[in-house]
Amino acid sequence: MRSGPLAATSLFGYATRLRSLPLVKKSTFPTPQDAEAAFYEALEAAELEAMMEVWAEDEEIVCVHPGGARLAGYDQVRSSWAQIFGSGQRLKIHVSDQVVLSGMMLAIHSVHENILVQGESRARPPVAVTNVYLRTGNGWRMILHHGSPAPQAPRAPAESPKILH
Amino acid sequence: MRSGPLAATSLFGYATRLRSLPLVKKSTFPTPQDAEAAFYEALEAAELEAMMEVWAEDEEIVCVHPGGARLAGYDQVRSSWAQIFGSGQRLKIHVSDQVVLSGMMLAIHSVHENILVQGESRARPPVAVTNVYLRTGNGWRMILHHGSPAPQAPRAPAESPKILH
Repeated sequence: MRSGPLAATSLFGYATRLRSLPLVKKSTFPTPQDAEAAFYEALEAAELEAMMEVWAEDEEIVCVHPGGARLAGYDQVRSSWAQIFGSGQRLKIHVSDQVVLSGMMLAIHSVHENILVQGESRARPPVAVTNVYLRTGNGWRMILHHGSPAPQAPRAPAESPKILH
Repeated sequence: MRSGPLAATSLFGYATRLRSLPLVKKSTFPTPQDAEAAFYEALEAAELEAMMEVWAEDEEIVCVHPGGARLAGYDQVRSSWAQIFGSGQRLKIHVSDQVVLSGMMLAIHSVHENILVQGESRARPPVAVTNVYLRTGNGWRMILHHGSPAPQAPRAPAESPKILH
């Protein structure tokens, strides 16, 4: 869905912006999927610079870690990842159940993160995640990451006693 | 941000689609803000039909209630609201701290919901929420709602002991 008569104009605009950019060392992610892969690689590797290359440099980016507060703006988001990676905890993450809602300039990925913490024998309960990517002049970048712990049985909402709304 | 040279083409495409639509009784929301207002009105009134008028009729819509599983598709989303409204619990919701990330066809609103449950004297801890709206041929519709309980002090992430990542 979400494709239509804007495609040609939009692609032209995109190419024009790309040509006018100065040379930069930052990674370029040609698709939202590429940005998502880089996000989880950086998360598993606990590499702050690689993580922040995935994010748009924007004051309007948003990050909600599972159980955490809503963080807004590049500085808050960067600080949170620095804190998390600084803890020394290492994670293995298997992403599943992806639902994609994509437009020309924005893409929304809803996924489950299945997280194994190094040193623990059993996976944690899945995390329900919304990832949003923006097509910038320099490829796709993350602009929002919202994670929340999900019940063990993701397809049985009636079993969850905690639903407020 | 996110506006640009596509505006004229896109508005033309939108008008064309509107003219070709059959007459329908459903509400039309001219802006994402209008759809968001209708969402919270329906939630406070616990009116299922009004709630589902806000949502796009799409198999790719996603809803994560606070503490709940990720629901995907119109039927799962509708059933969850029917269950919630059927409980008889009534809510008053004050929305604050809105951050808007908008494109021509998609709009992402990050907000805090401050919820007072009828019969309770104190507000619950805030809920961090990501709402996503899609511009359809019949106005803006919600395509994703993701809520998760946030710590009481939304701007002090270091105080939260539950951050996994």
